[in-house]
Amino acid sequence: MIRFAIAFVLLSLANSLFAEEGMFLFSNPPKKAVVEKYGFEMSDGWLETAQKATLRFPNGTGSFVSGNGLIMTNHHIASAQLQALSTEENDLLSNGFYAKTEAEELPCPSLELLALQSYEDVSEKVKSAVKPEMSLEEAEKARRAVIARIEKEATDATGLQCNVVTLYQGGQYHLYRYKKYADVRLVFAPEQQAGSFGGDPDNFEYPRYCLDCAFFRAYEDGKPAATPHHFGWAKENVKNDELVFVSGHPGRTNRAYVPLHLKFQRDVVLPRTLQKLYRLETVYSVYAERSEENKRRIKNELDYIKNSRKVRTGQQAGLLDPALMMQKNVEDDIFWSTFQRDERLFKERATLPNLNEILQSWMGVLNLYQFVEQGDAFPARTFQIARMLVRLAYELEKPNDQRLSEYQDSNLDSLKRSLFSEAPIYEDVEILKLENGLTFCSEVLGATDPILGLDAKSPIQRATELVKGTRLFAVEERKRIAEGGIKAIEESSDPMIKLAVAADPHARKVRKQFETTVDEPLKQAYAKIADWKFQLFGDTFYPDATFTLRLSYGTVKGYTEDDGTAVPPWTVIDGMFERAASHKNVPPFDMPESWAKAKGKLDLTMPFNLVSTNDIIGGNSGSPLFNKNAEVVGLIFDGNLQSLSSDMIYTDVQSRAVSVHAAGIVEALRKVYDMGRIADELGN
Amino acid sequence: MIRFAIAFVLLSLANSLFAEEGMFLFSNPPKKAVVEKYGFEMSDGWLETAQKATLRFPNGTGSFVSGNGLIMTNHHIASAQLQALSTEENDLLSNGFYAKTEAEELPCPSLELLALQSYEDVSEKVKSAVKPEMSLEEAEKARRAVIARIEKEATDATGLQCNVVTLYQGGQYHLYRYKKYADVRLVFAPEQQAGSFGGDPDNFEYPRYCLDCAFFRAYEDGKPAATPHHFGWAKENVKNDELVFVSGHPGRTNRAYVPLHLKFQRDVVLPRTLQKLYRLETVYSVYAERSEENKRRIKNELDYIKNSRKVRTGQQAGLLDPALMMQKNVEDDIFWSTFQRDERLFKERATLPNLNEILQSWMGVLNLYQFVEQGDAFPARTFQIARMLVRLAYELEKPNDQRLSEYQDSNLDSLKRSLFSEAPIYEDVEILKLENGLTFCSEVLGATDPILGLDAKSPIQRATELVKGTRLFAVEERKRIAEGGIKAIEESSDPMIKLAVAADPHARKVRKQFETTVDEPLKQAYAKIADWKFQLFGDTFYPDATFTLRLSYGTVKGYTEDDGTAVPPWTVIDGMFERAASHKNVPPFDMPESWAKAKGKLDLTMPFNLVSTNDIIGGNSGSPLFNKNAEVVGLIFDGNLQSLSSDMIYTDVQSRAVSVHAAGIVEALRKVYDMGRIADELGN
Repeated sequence: MIRFAIAFVLLSLANSLFAEEGMFLFSNPPKKAVVEKYGFEMSDGWLETAQKATLRFPNGTGSFVSGNGLIMTNHHIASAQLQALSTEENDLLSNGFYAKTEAEELPCPSLELLALQSYEDVSEKVKSAVKPEMSLEEAEKARRAVIARIEKEATDATGLQCNVVTLYQGGQYHLYRYKKYADVRLVFAPEQQAGSFGGDPDNFEYPRYCLDCAFFRAYEDGKPAATPHHFGWAKENVKNDELVFVSGHPGRTNRAYVPLHLKFQRDVVLPRTLQKLYRLETVYSVYAERSEENKRRIKNELDYIKNSRKVRTGQQAGLLDPALMMQKNVEDDIFWSTFQRDERLFKERATLPNLNEILQSWMGVLNLYQFVEQGDAFPARTFQIARMLVRLAYELEKPNDQRLSEYQDSNLDSLKRSLFSEAPIYEDVEILKLENGLTFCSEVLGATDPILGLDAKSPIQRATELVKGTRLFAVEERKRIAEGGIKAIEESSDPMIKLAVAADPHARKVRKQFETTVDEPLKQAYAKIADWKFQLFGDTFYPDATFTLRLSYGTVKGYTEDDGTAVPPWTVIDGMFERAASHKNVPPFDMPESWAKAKGKLDLTMPFNLVSTNDIIGGNSGSPLFNKNAEVVGLIFDGNLQSLSSDMIYTDVQSRAVSVHAAGIVEALRKVYDMGRIADELGN
Repeated sequence: MIRFAIAFVLLSLANSLFAEEGMFLFSNPPKKAVVEKYGFEMSDGWLETAQKATLRFPNGTGSFVSGNGLIMTNHHIASAQLQALSTEENDLLSNGFYAKTEAEELPCPSLELLALQSYEDVSEKVKSAVKPEMSLEEAEKARRAVIARIEKEATDATGLQCNVVTLYQGGQYHLYRYKKYADVRLVFAPEQQAGSFGGDPDNFEYPRYCLDCAFFRAYEDGKPAATPHHFGWAKENVKNDELVFVSGHPGRTNRAYVPLHLKFQRDVVLPRTLQKLYRLETVYSVYAERSEENKRRIKNELDYIKNSRKVRTGQQAGLLDPALMMQKNVEDDIFWSTFQRDERLFKERATLPNLNEILQSWMGVLNLYQFVEQGDAFPARTFQIARMLVRLAYELEKPNDQRLSEYQDSNLDSLKRSLFSEAPIYEDVEILKLENGLTFCSEVLGATDPILGLDAKSPIQRATELVKGTRLFAVEERKRIAEGGIKAIEESSDPMIKLAVAADPHARKVRKQFETTVDEPLKQAYAKIADWKFQLFGDTFYPDATFTLRLSYGTVKGYTEDDGTAVPPWTVIDGMFERAASHKNVPPFDMPESWAKAKGKLDLTMPFNLVSTNDIIGGNSGSPLFNKNAEVVGLIFDGNLQSLSSDMIYTDVQSRAVSVHAAGIVEALRKVYDMGRIADELGN
C-alpha cells in the first residue's frame, strides 16, 4: 500500500511538472519552463506584442489582428453589441452583420476596450500604508486610500487608465496602465446559426463545428487606429503537438482551495446547487413546453439555468475524480512540508483560522442563507424588488460606511437602474417561481417553518395571492415607495412589501452570520496561506485569475474519452454539414442558409474547430490562440466538458480549450460571407 | 383560537359530508347518500347493469356499450394491443385502426377481459382458518390455503374465474366470480395524434382536447357476444351540475394513511423521490437533445420519468395544502375519539405498533435502501441483470418458501422472461445511467463510501469500465450463467457480476432491515387500524382501492384555479384547432390530418372533453361516465393536476376527473373517421 502511494505521488508530481498548468502574469512569464520543454525563447519583443495586442472586452477578450486596428473576438462576446445595434427591421444577432466597406463599419457607442501598456509592482507602497496596530477596518480603509492615490498620480502622469490590481489574495499589488479605445466599430459577425451552431446541447462539447467569431475595428480621430503591436495570421495550419499560446483575461479561478475545501464543495455546496438547478431546469422546461409564448418568456432564464447546470456537473465530475483530488493533495502536502521546515513561518501557524470550523459553520448556515438571504425561497422578481425597496429605505438612514455594501453610495446608481428597470415581468412566471421556491424551501426547512410566511396556505395559494396582490409590477409604484422612504414602507399594504419586511430580520441575521463566521474568516485564511506561499516560493507560482491579463502555453492535442473514443485535434467544415443532416436540420443544428448555398465553393476538408491544452477559463472567450511567431492559429471560444473543473483543478488528460481554427475563419470569410477584404487584411 | 378551530372542524365535516368522496363496492353502494343528496334511487337492476357491463382490462377499465358486445375504452388502454397488432408496414398506434365492417374487426389473441357476475362475503371462512396460537407465518399459510380452496370450489361449481379479494386491509374477504371474455377484437382506434393530442405537456391538465377512446368487440363462438347488460348512450348532452356515475377498477389508493404518515410522505419520501426524478429528467433530456437516435433510445424512459415527476409534484402540492391536511386530521380525530369511547377496543390500544418509531426506522434506512437495494446507485439494466443472476443462483438452492419473494416458484417464469428478454440495451445509455447513479449516490452517502465500489475511480470511469467490460448484453451469456448456478457466478470474471456479488450482502441486509422494521410493522399497524375502524363503523366507509370493481358518484362541474381563472365544465371541438394553431402545429400539438380535412363538416361547438367531481384514480382509465339512466355521457381518461393528491386525500374543490364527452365521440366517429356504423350501434 505504501509503495503504491509513493509511486502515485511521484507519478502525480511528474504529471504536474509536465502539465501545462498556469495563467501567467506578463510580469513573470514562464520563460524557463517553455525553453526547457519546447526550446523556445519568449523574447521581450514577442511578449510586448502579445501584451499590447490583447484587449479587454467588458465580458471577455479580443486582439488586434492587423496594423489598422482590426480586432478579432467571439460572436458570443460581440452579442451584447449586436443586440444593442439591432433595430426592429434588422436583428443583427440573428442575421449577422457584414460591412462591405470601411465606411459601413458600425459605431458601437457603449463599447470601450482596454490594452495593457505597462505595469509596476507597488506592493511595498500599498502594504506599508497598513500599520500593525490598525484594526481590520482601519487597515482596509488605509489600503483603499493609498491605492486611490497611486491610481490618481499614475493617471495624471500618463493620461492612461490606471488601476491597482490585487494578486495572490493580497500577496502582491500591481499598478496596471491601460490604453483605452473608445471608438470601436462593428466589422463582421456571422448569423447566430453559424455563430452558435449546436446551441446549448453543444455548449462545452467537442468535437464541435462553430464559427464563434466576430470582427471589430478600433478608430482614433475618426480613422482606423494604427496598431503596430498586433498578431499576425498563420501562413500554414497549426500542426498536431505544436506549441501554442493564449493571451487574455481569465475571470476567476479558485486554484488556491485546499483539499478540505474541495471536498466541502464536492459533498455539500455542489450537490445543493445541483439539486436546485435540476429542479429549476425541469420546472422551467415544463412551463416552456406549454406554449410558444411561455417558451419566449422563460428562454433567457432557462438557458442560464442549463448553462449553470452544465458547469456545475462538470465541476462535480472533476472533484469526483480521485486522480485530480490526489493531485491537489500532493500540492498541499508539498506546501505544508516546506512550511514546517521554515522555523520562522512555522511559529505563525496558530494564526491561521481553523478551516474545518469555518466549513462546519458554513454547513450550519448554508440552507438558511441560500433560502432566506440569497432568495431561493422567494425567487420572484417582484419579491426581489420589494426587498430592495425595504432595504433601501432603512439603509439610506445610515452613514455610508455602515450600510450593506450594495446600498453604499458608489453602488446606488446600479441598484436604482435595476430597481426601476422597465424590463417586462410576467405574472405567470412570477407565480411559477414563487410556488417552486416555497415548495423547495418547505421540503428542506419543513412545511410549517414560519420563516416561509405561508400563512396557513399552500405554496401555490400563497404565491398566487402575493403576485396577484402586489403593485410592484409598475415602475411608478416602485419610485413612489423609494421616494417615500421608511414611512412609505411602514404604511404600505402591498403583500410583497409586507413579506419582505417580515423576512428581512431573518435574512439580515443569517447574512451577518455567514459573513462573520464563513466568508470573512475564509478570506483571511486564504490570504494567510497565500502570504506564506509567497514567502516560501516567491512568484514561481502564478496567482489565481482575477480578470487581469494572462499568458498560457500548451499544445494542439486530441484526447481519449473514457469510453476509448479517440477525439481528433481538429474538426473539418464537412462535419458541420454532417451534424446538421444527422439532426434533420432541426434547430439548433440547422444549417445556415449562407453555408448551404456556399457548399459547392467551400473546401470541406478545411479545419474548422480545434483543441489545445492551454489553461483557460471564462473571460478567455475571444482570446487569440497563437504560435511562436505570434501568428493567430485559432480563436478561443469554449472549453470541453472535462475542462469545467478547471476553476479549481487544472488537468490536461482530457481537459481542452476549444478554438475556431484560423483556416476555417478565412475560408468562411472568403467563400460564405464575401468578406474577402477582411481575409486580405488579416496577417498583412 | 379555539372557536376558530371548532368552526373549522365543523366546516370540514360539512365539507366531507357533501363532498363526493368514495370508491364504493357494488356489495355496499352509497344508496342512502345519493337519495339524500340527489333524490335518486339506485335500483338493484340499475346496479346489476352497471356491474355486469363494466369490464376489467389488464391495465384499466372498459364497458359494454351495445347488446352486441361492443366495448368502449381509452386509446391509451388499447395502446398495448395496437402495438402488438402493428406490422412493419402499418403502425396501428401511430395510424389508428378502422374496421369498416364486422369482418374486418381484428382479433387480439393476448387480450382477456373480465366482467364481475356475483360476489359473496367469505370473511368468516377465511378468518376462522387462522387460529390465535399461530405465528405470523403460519397464519399467512393457513389464510393462503383456505383462499385457494374457496377459489377452487367456486370455479368448479360455476365455471367462472373466481378470486378471493382482500378488502379493508384484511378486514374483509370477498369471493368474486368473473365471466371471462377471451375472444376480443379491435374495432376502432384513432391515430395517436388525436388519441393523445397534447402529449406529455397536456397530461393531467385541463382544459383538454383529446379523443382518448377506442372500441373493441367481445365475441363468443365466433360471433359478436350477446351482452344484454350494457350501458346506453345519452340522447342529450349532460348538463352542468348533473349527477353522474363512474364504474371501474381503480388501482390503488392510500386513503388509510394517518396524518403522521402523510407528513412523512410530504417531508421525507416525496422530496427524495422528486430529487431523483428532477435529476433524471434533466440527465435524460440532455442526452436526448444530442441526437435523433439518442431521442429514440431514451424516449420511453424519459416519458415514464416525466409522468412520475408530474404525479409526485401533484401529490406534494396536495400534501402542502393545509386545508387538505386539516381534513385528514379531522377524520383522524373523529376515529380516535370514537375509539376512546369504546371500552373494549380501547384496551387493545397498546397492541398497535408505534407508528412514530416505524417512520423513524424508515428515515434511518431510506437512503441506503433506495440506493443499494432499489438500485438508485446502479440503475443500469446490465447491473439489474447481474443481480438477478446472482440472486437466482443462491435463491434456487433454498426451499421455495425461504426464498426472496420474486424468486419463489410462482414468480420464476416472469423473472426469466425479464432476464432473458431480447429487448435492446444501449451501451451509451447504460454508461449514462450508471454514471448518474454513482454520482447521485456519492453526493448523498459520500464519495468514498465503499458500498459504491468505485475502486478509486470517478463515476464516469467506473461506469465505463463496468459497461464496456460486461458480457451481459448477450442473452446467451445470461443463459449460460443462469444454467451454471453458483459455480458459474463464483467463476465469473464479468465486472458487473462481481459488482453485484460485492453489493449483495449490503443490499440483502438493508432489505431485511426495511422489511422487518418498516414494511411489515406498517402493514400490521394499518391492518389493526382498519380492523378497529371496521368494528366501530362497519362498512359505512369504503375500502382503499385494490383493482376491484367500484362505483363513484359526482357531478359535472367546472372549478376556479388559484389565480382566479374560471375553468368551464366542458371544452368544444374548436378548442383543439385553436390549441394546435397557437402551438404552430408543432408536435405533440399538431392537428391530425383527418381532423384538418374534416374541419368543414364538423360542428365545432360540439362538446369534446368534460370534468366531473367523481372520485377516481389510475385503473379507472377507460371507465364509463354515465347518468341516472345508465347511459354513457363520457369516457374517463385522466384526472387534472389537482387530482394527483387523491391517492391519499380526496377533495372536490379543484380536483376533477377528465372524460371524453359522449357527443364528441359520436361527432368524430361520424364525421372524421367515417365510422357511422359504430355511432349507429351505440345506444341501440
